[in-house]
Amino acid sequence: MPFRRTVFFVSDGTGISAQMLGHSLLTQFEGFEFKEVTLPFVDSVEKVRLDCMPRIQAALEAGNGIPIVFSTLVNPEARDLIRGSGALLFDFFETFIDPLEAGLGMRSNHTIGRSHGVKDTKGYTNRIEAVNFAMAHDDGSSHRDLADSDVILIGVSRSGKTPTSLYLALQFGVKAANYPLIPEDFSRKALPEILKHYKSKLYGLTISPERLREIRQERRPDSQYAKFENCRYEVEQAEMLMRREGVRWINSTTKSIEEISTTILRDIKIERPLY
Amino acid sequence: MPFRRTVFFVSDGTGISAQMLGHSLLTQFEGFEFKEVTLPFVDSVEKVRLDCMPRIQAALEAGNGIPIVFSTLVNPEARDLIRGSGALLFDFFETFIDPLEAGLGMRSNHTIGRSHGVKDTKGYTNRIEAVNFAMAHDDGSSHRDLADSDVILIGVSRSGKTPTSLYLALQFGVKAANYPLIPEDFSRKALPEILKHYKSKLYGLTISPERLREIRQERRPDSQYAKFENCRYEVEQAEMLMRREGVRWINSTTKSIEEISTTILRDIKIERPLY
Repeated sequence: MPFRRTVFFVSDGTGISAQMLGHSLLTQFEGFEFKEVTLPFVDSVEKVRLDCMPRIQAALEAGNGIPIVFSTLVNPEARDLIRGSGALLFDFFETFIDPLEAGLGMRSNHTIGRSHGVKDTKGYTNRIEAVNFAMAHDDGSSHRDLADSDVILIGVSRSGKTPTSLYLALQFGVKAANYPLIPEDFSRKALPEILKHYKSKLYGLTISPERLREIRQERRPDSQYAKFENCRYEVEQAEMLMRREGVRWINSTTKSIEEISTTILRDIKIERPLY
Repeated sequence: MPFRRTVFFVSDGTGISAQMLGHSLLTQFEGFEFKEVTLPFVDSVEKVRLDCMPRIQAALEAGNGIPIVFSTLVNPEARDLIRGSGALLFDFFETFIDPLEAGLGMRSNHTIGRSHGVKDTKGYTNRIEAVNFAMAHDDGSSHRDLADSDVILIGVSRSGKTPTSLYLALQFGVKAANYPLIPEDFSRKALPEILKHYKSKLYGLTISPERLREIRQERRPDSQYAKFENCRYEVEQAEMLMRREGVRWINSTTKSIEEISTTILRDIKIERPLY
């Protein structure tokens, strides 16, 4: 039986940063089964008292070891209260704000809930526009404004183009169109006509035929589309086409959406903003 | 003129955790203009030497103060190299792994690039399925499998339903359908028929008429759809309808996608997993 431990992510904002970094740290401890609980918008000492303390207390009493709290709390009083609960507290703000103040030669604002707010309206609008763009240009559904795209993803059906386009838009405000490579392209042995005007923007996704078969089988069981022979043919042809046309590509088989997106941004040399 | 400083986010993985937390910390220092550079997949000492050092060196020589490096590097040798460059290094792993090892009574794996990889195949499949679900159920486009949704977002056109559904899917693997409230619903003074079967899953988004007008004006300039009077009417009617039907809602006007999504998950009491 694995070791158990309850882990809280507590923040005066969304808790997404605390959860993401805390979760990264926990992936370094295999053998533990972590019960992860996120407590967002804890922006007053009152809320620590009412929303956090009883849950930490319950976890302490459950007898699965000392609960761990990862937090991004600007208010020192709020942190002290949690530290007094008996939980093991790691506050990302507390740890780094002092040395950052020293390094920058400036006092911090100590303002609550600043990240993931809508301060940067311009950046925020970019992001929403990028989502609209990805939706309008999903699966080759529109040729309009392709020139405005930052990148155009191409690949066979179910190679991961849609989730990647959406992630690039939502997380980084990058405008990604996506365009399927289909059997007609393979017979013609040429990229879709419209894409020839945007060759420098093309980026390919490929996938192993085995994994592609699994995904397609899930969607359209026992179809010609999902047959292994067909998957292998399409992947081979798509790779041949991309190689001939000099299109960069990445194999998505064992990569997460984050890894695929990060690789694309690195390769197309777009500095990724965060909003 | 604002103070300038170059900030690097360096990681042996995607760098998304380092970037997100580092960025959160920097939002506490107003008055600085940070030039943010992300260097992902730095998974060897060789790559530190080739990809990071010259860029840090260049930033040092640019004379905008000591560059700051936020990192999540598992390899201590890689960290030492960066520390020796003269940059101010904050490594999130180094800082927390030791006290976490003590607290958990276990050595960590020291495995590179573990977060945002595809370890948890089940969780990963959930996420992709949630994206497919959100796409298939965008803007009321399908009634199929609505019973499988975790939440059904409703609201007037351009109140933020689509980006929120996609964020819930991509970030948390939560299945969110979305359904527009349209003038026909307001004349009938009733929710769309199909939604009556799923009242417990409904969650409303509303928005200020002023902001709605701006967004619609951008999309369809000088249309009836974008007129302030029309926006005010639709918002009023939508809120009246939701109030009458007992649907919870949130005002999205000044909230980010992260804040809206976090609030919804808290309210519908879904524990948000991270993959």
